[in-house]
Order: sequence, then structure tokens, then C-alpha cells
Amino acid sequence: MQELSSTETYSLGLLTVACIAVLINAWSSDGEPLFASIAISGIAFAFTYGLIRWTGDVFIKRGYKGRDMSKKNAVVIPEAMGLVCALVYLLAIVNFLPFAFKRDIVEVTTGGGNKDAVLEAQDIEMGRFLHRFPLEKLASYGFAYGTLASVTILGILDDSFDMRWRHKFFIPAFAALPMLALYFVDFGVTHVVVPLPLRKYMGELIDLGGLYYLYMAAVAIFCPNCINILAGINGIEVGQSLVIALLIALNDMLYLLPSVHQPHPAADSHLFSIYLLLPFIGVSLALLKHNWYPAKVFVGDTYCYFAGMVFAVVGILGHFSKTLLLLFIPQIFNFVYSVPQLIGIVPCPRHRLPHFNARTGLLEPSVATFSNEKPLRPIVGAVLKLLGKAKLLRVQTDKDGRVIETTNLTILNLWLVWRGPLREDRLAAEILVMQSLCGLLGLWVRHSLASLLFTADNRF
Amino acid sequence: MQELSSTETYSLGLLTVACIAVLINAWSSDGEPLFASIAISGIAFAFTYGLIRWTGDVFIKRGYKGRDMSKKNAVVIPEAMGLVCALVYLLAIVNFLPFAFKRDIVEVTTGGGNKDAVLEAQDIEMGRFLHRFPLEKLASYGFAYGTLASVTILGILDDSFDMRWRHKFFIPAFAALPMLALYFVDFGVTHVVVPLPLRKYMGELIDLGGLYYLYMAAVAIFCPNCINILAGINGIEVGQSLVIALLIALNDMLYLLPSVHQPHPAADSHLFSIYLLLPFIGVSLALLKHNWYPAKVFVGDTYCYFAGMVFAVVGILGHFSKTLLLLFIPQIFNFVYSVPQLIGIVPCPRHRLPHFNARTGLLEPSVATFSNEKPLRPIVGAVLKLLGKAKLLRVQTDKDGRVIETTNLTILNLWLVWRGPLREDRLAAEILVMQSLCGLLGLWVRHSLASLLFTADNRF
Repeated sequence: MQELSSTETYSLGLLTVACIAVLINAWSSDGEPLFASIAISGIAFAFTYGLIRWTGDVFIKRGYKGRDMSKKNAVVIPEAMGLVCALVYLLAIVNFLPFAFKRDIVEVTTGGGNKDAVLEAQDIEMGRFLHRFPLEKLASYGFAYGTLASVTILGILDDSFDMRWRHKFFIPAFAALPMLALYFVDFGVTHVVVPLPLRKYMGELIDLGGLYYLYMAAVAIFCPNCINILAGINGIEVGQSLVIALLIALNDMLYLLPSVHQPHPAADSHLFSIYLLLPFIGVSLALLKHNWYPAKVFVGDTYCYFAGMVFAVVGILGHFSKTLLLLFIPQIFNFVYSVPQLIGIVPCPRHRLPHFNARTGLLEPSVATFSNEKPLRPIVGAVLKLLGKAKLLRVQTDKDGRVIETTNLTILNLWLVWRGPLREDRLAAEILVMQSLCGLLGLWVRHSLASLLFTADNRF
Repeated sequence: MQELSSTETYSLGLLTVACIAVLINAWSSDGEPLFASIAISGIAFAFTYGLIRWTGDVFIKRGYKGRDMSKKNAVVIPEAMGLVCALVYLLAIVNFLPFAFKRDIVEVTTGGGNKDAVLEAQDIEMGRFLHRFPLEKLASYGFAYGTLASVTILGILDDSFDMRWRHKFFIPAFAALPMLALYFVDFGVTHVVVPLPLRKYMGELIDLGGLYYLYMAAVAIFCPNCINILAGINGIEVGQSLVIALLIALNDMLYLLPSVHQPHPAADSHLFSIYLLLPFIGVSLALLKHNWYPAKVFVGDTYCYFAGMVFAVVGILGHFSKTLLLLFIPQIFNFVYSVPQLIGIVPCPRHRLPHFNARTGLLEPSVATFSNEKPLRPIVGAVLKLLGKAKLLRVQTDKDGRVIETTNLTILNLWLVWRGPLREDRLAAEILVMQSLCGLLGLWVRHSLASLLFTADNRF
């Protein structure tokens, strides 16, 4: 399992060489950030692919390992492999920076007729002609990097120290602090545009003040955690993250089309978003290849936190966090649906992943059973029965009509209730298709309804 | 050991309350970054102190533990506690940012007669009046944070995965990439000022180009590794880091004295340096309290890398990396002195820390012995004997005059050769005093010789 096959070595080598050629070419012209970003993402894919193979044994040796419970022969495979993704990703972002700013460097040092400006000794302390340089972009990259590195640290700690759910939940908020500090110091805008129907009461803009920071912190806590909660079958964590990344990138491209009046005021934000997403897509594809059914590695909490934080960063620093949430509809549903078990109203077993039926080889909804010692409160039982009638659960009652068992409250189990037993990869694929459709619908709603609720869709 | 005593709880609580009062006060005036930084460092001290106690057992449980070999009863104590320092430090830096920029935020949003400027809907996409904001400072903080978070990640990996020395050595170079990228994109100055005697041959400035980046990478590799190599007795890693931090802070203050013509062009760089060093001093003091003889915790490679990288960051982004190296003289000596063992010319045992004599309770120089199967090359033996004559080693020869044993090549063993057996804390204290004197001498040389070699000391 550790060695790459010769076909793999050959293909990855070829990809790397091609990408390096693109990079050299991009550098010798104006940096061409988009091509450079694609090329770096290709290299990041190849590098992650190789590293996952080469380091698997080391991870197992150090105790980062787990058994796949949804297989007939549950072998031990490496856990927390998202760490490799995060490291390669961070390296990719750093190496992209010179390309992102090549054009600006050239402009600043040679443009404006200053070609023969002589460097004075005292300039050595001051650096380039800083006031003409797009430093706000540079600062954004710096703090985005800091936030993502922080969430990687906290992800490693979580995977190493087995934290409790209650403590884990707020981890992303700490990691998001650099980003929130940047927002506070740099942008400081806490106003939001009021939808048309409400303007006569509230004016065109409303200042949310401190609430806006709470809202951003909530986004930063929510995105990582909701990916971490919609988990448990091969490929679902990476798959859903890839779908979200592709949907955000699609939305970004809507602002960069030649048909849109350019330069669009939000174009820079959406380019920033694309440059952060492309390498993420690269490393995630390499991980998906190894995490898809039947999984050779597990991704760990590190990956879920990291992926969620990438989305929070691009959404918040790119100023489209509300659009972002439209792409998280299945995750939001899953989160809300899970709440009764998470806060303990409905008893929550240790694991809620679907039950593997070894005889059929298919997944079935897993259940929580309620013993006579700890009976359900009557009102909870009544609500569960109601949900069962609405086909949002499957409940079992005893002869007295009391609920003794319910399927666990996750979207994966619900899907199995609706569709019947499915093989693991089939379940993952169907969830991803459903998620893609929800996301596309969300984007359509956002761009067509925006012109009704506000004076105009900000895309035009 | 896990619980704080009531005196400790009381003192730390009092310190925290006082610091919070200072912070509130600083915020309500102009941010007052220096006071805010001191207050945050106080809180960081208290927080680190408590966390080291509270998390010790968790570290041991997860396998981050070690035995202190220089004690009569070698008990198991937590290892890698520098991780706690690094996390608290990063948190402190983020929380300091709003104070660092309060004055600028106020100036930008209300200054220049624009007090009644009305926020327009389209400003929401653009943020504050960015062109008037000191974004180059902000970007520096972002990338400094990114670099230090990266070195923390790599430190954890090193402490978790037991990497080989050859691989570890280059770890800091990866972590330094964000800082080098910032330097490349933002400053781009690779010229150095030529000393007076050489100017007639080379001109006033010389462009080192790519070499300058290699030099900075070398500084970033060297600082963390040389602290990691001068290690092995209680308190020495944290102690030497504190001495260096205090010396850099002293040098910074020389540029900020009222007697210096203000605003000095380098004042901002040295303020940046002080703001990064104060919280480091805070968290390190808390660690030293627990790591000083007899140690209750070990610091781990994480701390050594982290400390070294803090120095590299302030030196490089503060543009005084050459002065910085003057404060590393004992470390540079120890590194050069170690090289023959590190590269294998002289055989290197698994551990080179001083030998603990359980009978006397004192430390003695540890030795490397040369068996007949693997004899020394004659030339190496001759050099060792010469060094022995110069009192830079203690060698043992057999009756034929061949070297069969030498003290290990570290400054700690050499000090014991000179001074005779010492108790562990005495050895650490003497080394720290020697280091302080070397550093003060280095600073004196730098500021008095500079006016001879260059047209002027840049302090005036």
C-alpha cells in the first residue's frame, strides 16, 4: 500500500513536470496568477497523493489509526490523513504569493516613469515604495494563512488528545481569531445592506456593530463543525467539501466572466477566493482518491476543521458569507436535525454512523433504543412519533404505543430510511448529488432573488 | 502537581485582574500599544502558568512524557510543554492587534476633517479608506503570525513523530517560507550597506539578490536549531531564550529612547520587535518556573523551534538580522564546536548531555569512547589531542598515545571541563550569566564599532 505503482509514479511525475513548465512560463510573463494557481494546485495534488502513501505507516505506528467498521474484514488503516492535506495546502499558498504579486512588484518598481529611480541607503530600512503596493491584499493572504495554520494546529491537537465534544465545538472560534482581528483592524465595516421591503423602517444600511463579529465567529464555528458532523462513511467528508469548494468557485467565476462589467468592484475578492480554493481542490482530490470506498485512509478531524475553515475564510474575507451559507443547506439541515441528540433531549449513542449489515453488505439506518430505566419524556416521544409520520424518522413503538427505538438523527440515516439499504459508496454518491443540486438551487435563488430584495444583484 | 496552590491562584488572579484593568484603560485612550503589550504579556504569563499545571497529566497520558536522567529518582514528567507556550503566545499576539492599530483606526475614520463622512453602500465591499492605513505593518503581523503558527505545527510533528536529525534540521526553513514570501513581495530590498573600508572597491550599496534570501533562510534555520542543540539540562533551553529575548528588547529600547532623535526611521521596526518579544517573555517565564531545576516539565523541540523562530522573525522583519547574530555567540560557538560530532567525523553517542554522578549528585562531562573496532582516523586523533592541549576538550589516551575517549563536543561539557563537576542548576545559571555577558559585549561592539565601519551607527 505504501509504494506508488509505476503507472501512478509516471502519471504524477508527468503532471508535476507539466505544472512546473506552466509555472516557469507564468513567472517569465506577468505572474499570471490564475495559471500559476492551477499549476500549483496540480503539483499539490501530486505531492499529497504521494505523501499519503509514503507516510501511512508512520501514522499507524504513532497511533493515528482506526478500523473501518462498515467492512466485512475491518483492517487497520491510517487516521488523521487530512494533516497531510493541510500541510501541502499551506505550502502551496506560500509558494503562490510571488505569482499573485508579480505584476504589482513590476509596476511598483519600474512603472510610473521611475525606471531609473536609484535606491538610496535609507530605502533599505523602508523597503519598496509601499504606498503604491496593494498591501490590503497581502495582509489578507497573511491572516488567511495564519487562520488556516491555527486550525491545523487545533485539528492535530484534537486528533491527538481526543477532546470532548463540548470543548471541540469552540475550537474553530480560536483559530478564526486572526481573521476576525484582520477584519476589525482593516475593514471594520459592520454595516449590512437592508433588503428593499424593510428600507422604509430601517434605512438603506444598518450597523450591526459587535453583532457582526458574533455573526462572523458563528460562521467560523459552524462551517468546520457541520462538516465534522456530516461524517462517518467513506468519502463523505472529502466529497462534501469538494462539492462546496466547486460551488463557491462557480459563484466566484460568475463575477469574473467577460460578460460582467469589468473591473467589477468585487472581482478582487472573488479572485482571492478562487486562489485559495484551487489548491484546496487539488489536495482534496488526492485525499478523496484514498478515502473513497473502500477507504485506504481516514481523514480525521483535522481535515474537517481545515476544510470548513477554508470556506469560512474565503466567505468572510471575500465578503460573501451570506451566499456561502446557501451552499451549506444539507449541512445546516443535518445540524438542526442532529440538535436533539447533540444536546441530549434524545439519547445519543457513542456512534451514529449507519449500521453495516455484514450479511447483505449494505448500510442500514442505525438506531437509538430507549430502555425502561431511562424512558423518553412523553412530549419527546410524541414529537418523535409525529416526525415518524412525516417520514423524517423511523420509530418503533411497543404494544403500549411508547417509542422504544428511533433511527439516529443524521441526514445519512434519514436518506437510508427514504431509499432503503444502500451500499456505502452508493449512499455517499447519492448524498453528494443531492448536495450539488441543493447548492446550484441556492446559487440560482441568490442571484435571481437578489434583484428583487435589493436594488440590484451585486454581480451587475 | 496539577493543582495550583492557593497562593498561586491568588497571585495569578491578582496579576490577571490588574492587567485587564490596564488593558481597559489602554483601549479607552489611544490603544497605548506598549502598555497593552505589557498587560497582555502578564495575562499570557498567568494563563501559561495555569495551563502547564492543568494539562500536564493529559500530556503524559497521550505519551508526551520523559524521564529526567540527571536525578536520583528519575520520575516521569510531561514532555513538549513548549506547545502550551506557543498556543498562548499566538493567542496573545492576535489579541494585541486591535491595540496596536487603535490609533490608526481612529485617525483613518475620523481624522483629516472627514468626521462626518457618510458610509456609502459600495464602501461595504471596499472597507476602510485603505490607502491611509499602515497596511505594511498589518501585513508584517499577519505573516509573522503565519510563520510562528507554522513552526508550531512542525514542532508538534517533530515531538510526535520522532524525526531523524537530518530531516529535522531543515524544518524551520519550511516554517520560514511565509516570512520570506512577505519579504520578497513587500520589501524586496536585497541590498546591504558596504562598510567604509571596502567602499572604494564596491560602492556604497551592494545587491546580494538571491543570496540575501539564502542568508535569511540560513538565519531562520540556524536560530531554532542552535537553541535545540544547546540543551539537555533543566532550564537551559528556556533560560537561554529568555536571555536572548531580553537582549534584543534592550537593543530595541536603544532606538526608542527619548535621547534618540525621534521619530527614528527604524523606530517602527523596533517597536514591532518589542511587541512580539514581550508576550514571548511572559510565556517563557511561566515555563521556566516549571522547567528550572528540579524540572517538573520538559519543554520539547516545539519550544526550541518556536523560540528560535520568534528571534528570526523579529530580526528579519525588523531588519536587524546581523545584530541578532551578535546575541547568539555562545550558540554559534556551541554549534561550530558540535559540528565534528554532528557530521560524524568524531563518533556521536545517542545523548551528549552531561553525565549525572548519582553518588555526588553533580554533573560531570560526558564522554565519547572509541573502540578498537572503529578507531579514530589518525588525523582526527591528532586534532583532538591538540584541542585537549588548548583546554578545549579533555581527552584520554591509551599507552600507545592513541585517543580512546574525549568529552562530548558541547559547550555544557566544556564548561564542566573548565569548572569541574557542578550541580545542574549551578551549571545552567553560570552558562546563562556567561551568555548575558557575551550578549552585552556584542551589543556594545555593534553600537560603538558601527560608527567606525559605516558612516554612522544607524541609531543616531
